[in-house]
Amino acid sequence: MTYAQVTGSSPVTEDEIFEGHRDGKLSVAATRPISRPRDLSIAYTPGVAKVSRAIAEDAELAHRYTWADRLVVVVSDGTAVLGLGDIGASASLPVMEGKSVLFKTFGGLNSIPLVLNTTDVDEIVETLVRLRPSFGAVNLEDIAAPRCFELEDKLKAALDCPVMHDDQHGTAIVTLAALRGANLVLGRDIASQRVVISGAGAAGVACARILQEAGVGDVTVLDSKGIVHTGRAGLNPVKQKLAETTNAAGLRGGLTEALRGADVFLGLSGATIDETVLAGMADDPIVFALSNPDPEVHPEAAGRYAAIVATGRSDFPNQINNVLAFPGVFRGALDAGARAITENMKLAAAEAIFAVAQDDLGPDRIVPSPLDPRVAPEVAAAVAKAAIEDGVTT
Amino acid sequence: MTYAQVTGSSPVTEDEIFEGHRDGKLSVAATRPISRPRDLSIAYTPGVAKVSRAIAEDAELAHRYTWADRLVVVVSDGTAVLGLGDIGASASLPVMEGKSVLFKTFGGLNSIPLVLNTTDVDEIVETLVRLRPSFGAVNLEDIAAPRCFELEDKLKAALDCPVMHDDQHGTAIVTLAALRGANLVLGRDIASQRVVISGAGAAGVACARILQEAGVGDVTVLDSKGIVHTGRAGLNPVKQKLAETTNAAGLRGGLTEALRGADVFLGLSGATIDETVLAGMADDPIVFALSNPDPEVHPEAAGRYAAIVATGRSDFPNQINNVLAFPGVFRGALDAGARAITENMKLAAAEAIFAVAQDDLGPDRIVPSPLDPRVAPEVAAAVAKAAIEDGVTT
Repeated sequence: MTYAQVTGSSPVTEDEIFEGHRDGKLSVAATRPISRPRDLSIAYTPGVAKVSRAIAEDAELAHRYTWADRLVVVVSDGTAVLGLGDIGASASLPVMEGKSVLFKTFGGLNSIPLVLNTTDVDEIVETLVRLRPSFGAVNLEDIAAPRCFELEDKLKAALDCPVMHDDQHGTAIVTLAALRGANLVLGRDIASQRVVISGAGAAGVACARILQEAGVGDVTVLDSKGIVHTGRAGLNPVKQKLAETTNAAGLRGGLTEALRGADVFLGLSGATIDETVLAGMADDPIVFALSNPDPEVHPEAAGRYAAIVATGRSDFPNQINNVLAFPGVFRGALDAGARAITENMKLAAAEAIFAVAQDDLGPDRIVPSPLDPRVAPEVAAAVAKAAIEDGVTT
Repeated sequence: MTYAQVTGSSPVTEDEIFEGHRDGKLSVAATRPISRPRDLSIAYTPGVAKVSRAIAEDAELAHRYTWADRLVVVVSDGTAVLGLGDIGASASLPVMEGKSVLFKTFGGLNSIPLVLNTTDVDEIVETLVRLRPSFGAVNLEDIAAPRCFELEDKLKAALDCPVMHDDQHGTAIVTLAALRGANLVLGRDIASQRVVISGAGAAGVACARILQEAGVGDVTVLDSKGIVHTGRAGLNPVKQKLAETTNAAGLRGGLTEALRGADVFLGLSGATIDETVLAGMADDPIVFALSNPDPEVHPEAAGRYAAIVATGRSDFPNQINNVLAFPGVFRGALDAGARAITENMKLAAAEAIFAVAQDDLGPDRIVPSPLDPRVAPEVAAAVAKAAIEDGVTT
């Protein structure tokens, strides 16, 4: 099919972008105004002492009488920011502020960025453990692989609250939802698809896992050196595990070899590819070229080979954007009082996004719009239900 | 003179207080709404990448294009919360949220609480050093003495931004302003006053210092064991220094001995006193009974002995409340791009509060009302000017 740019309006200018960031994108407000002496006596001394004393006597009351319980901290060390790489904590801050804006806009959750001058996993964990009474959930963001896997694992073990690395699981959730949508459009069964994932970083590893959990039997992953297989030397522990759990056919080689006869190409590599390799795929394949800002293959070019094409771009159809997942995932987890985000909660989030898409499904509408206001509440409800079923609520 | 309660309205009820804290007192908002795809392209991908890249190339741009530069973090370990003592980080949170509300309401500054599960000075410093790119200034709050002195010193050395322990310096600034007001009312010279400070904690130590810097020649300090003097054994380093720099007359004993012939009683002890000791003071003395929520001596009782009485209470005249100082101090420091808060900046803040009070000065109006909207801008302007004069601006 043909994929043309859909944006009717003029391109966003640099001036607009920088003006949209002046003095930052976040503001703190009082939930109740301080205008009379009485307001001061309630919100500050002497009134506040009664609330502090009550929490000192019954720690559970902190959930009800502070903002921390439903505050999401967006945490980054700035080592893998968008496609920009390791640009440092300070330069990552606009991205984290944007994330906090989206948490509020779509999830109705308060959120603040905490960016760190350290890239040491144990130091990041230690810092958040010390700050634990200040927040209710942790969204890890733009932290380089493979460190991000270790960090998420250690942080989940150290904290009794929802923790999720969005570059892994947000991407995985929306990708699964989109793949479900594309397969329904094409009348195919997701379980029988042969999926090739280009990229073994945060998103690639998480996508491989969630697709397998969702029943996809044949997943092959490539990193910059080619297909990940058990015969390769020098794999890090994450890739070693990937080699053991994917590529059942034992494929070796590069993208050409991997894509031969494949049904789905999932690009999460940050590198562009030669579009002609798509010609070797099965008939009418599905191509998700998700690297930002430059897809692995331009959607118009991909459209010459594929039955359905998706990208991360807002100016083409089928935008796979994490904002469809993370606001609802955290909102649902916090609504349910969840102490963790389980695999079932992620699968439930993907199903909820897929369910909303089904109202108006089509080859260029396999996922809802990122601005669709129905998505976050549906995701939140599904995630909360899964949290309760999994028994991870307090 | 007679000091009667001034609050005409009904007392604040517990229900009002707890309802005023439900779900916390702070909210995060986007400075620009996300309603169109274009908004998403500016605030998040792909637009935000341009801003992050620009900051990566020129770190100074973080000041202009993120919120961090003007964000005040209110930091506590919960070890000396109001008059409640060591109630822990979580229970201290309502106080810190209230502080953040006041920063926004009076100083127009964004502020968030960060409460810590550790009371180790070096760990707190380390935590804030790691988080340095996330904020623009640190307000330390409700941290027990003498640890608070060491923490503030180490933090000032470790961070290139304004750091102030408000229980020390906010109290000292407003107390100096009030003492200037009271002396002007009584036609006395502040330099010739004999001042007795009951309490050698955070506030007592800082008040002694600022009064000396403001020219008060005769200051005597007491802790729970009596007058601090050089002959006492077992003084911690802070009290040892206090002993060496105060009490020039070499007084020994307790409050009765200290107050004999004194012009000013400054209560910062958290303990009540027998009002009859005030009878030994010089004629028409000044009594500031600042402990919260219970003053050292009830203002009505103090009024039987004193020419001017002040407390920390909102329901009596002459309320000495830190909110007169900290919003303007931090606002002025950040407006000027100050890397530190100097002694001159604190003295300038006190003079600015005193100047506003002079518009309507009287024995029961020695300081402006905590809600007086003129105070914070005047304090901010004076503090910014002093910062520039001291050469601590960037």
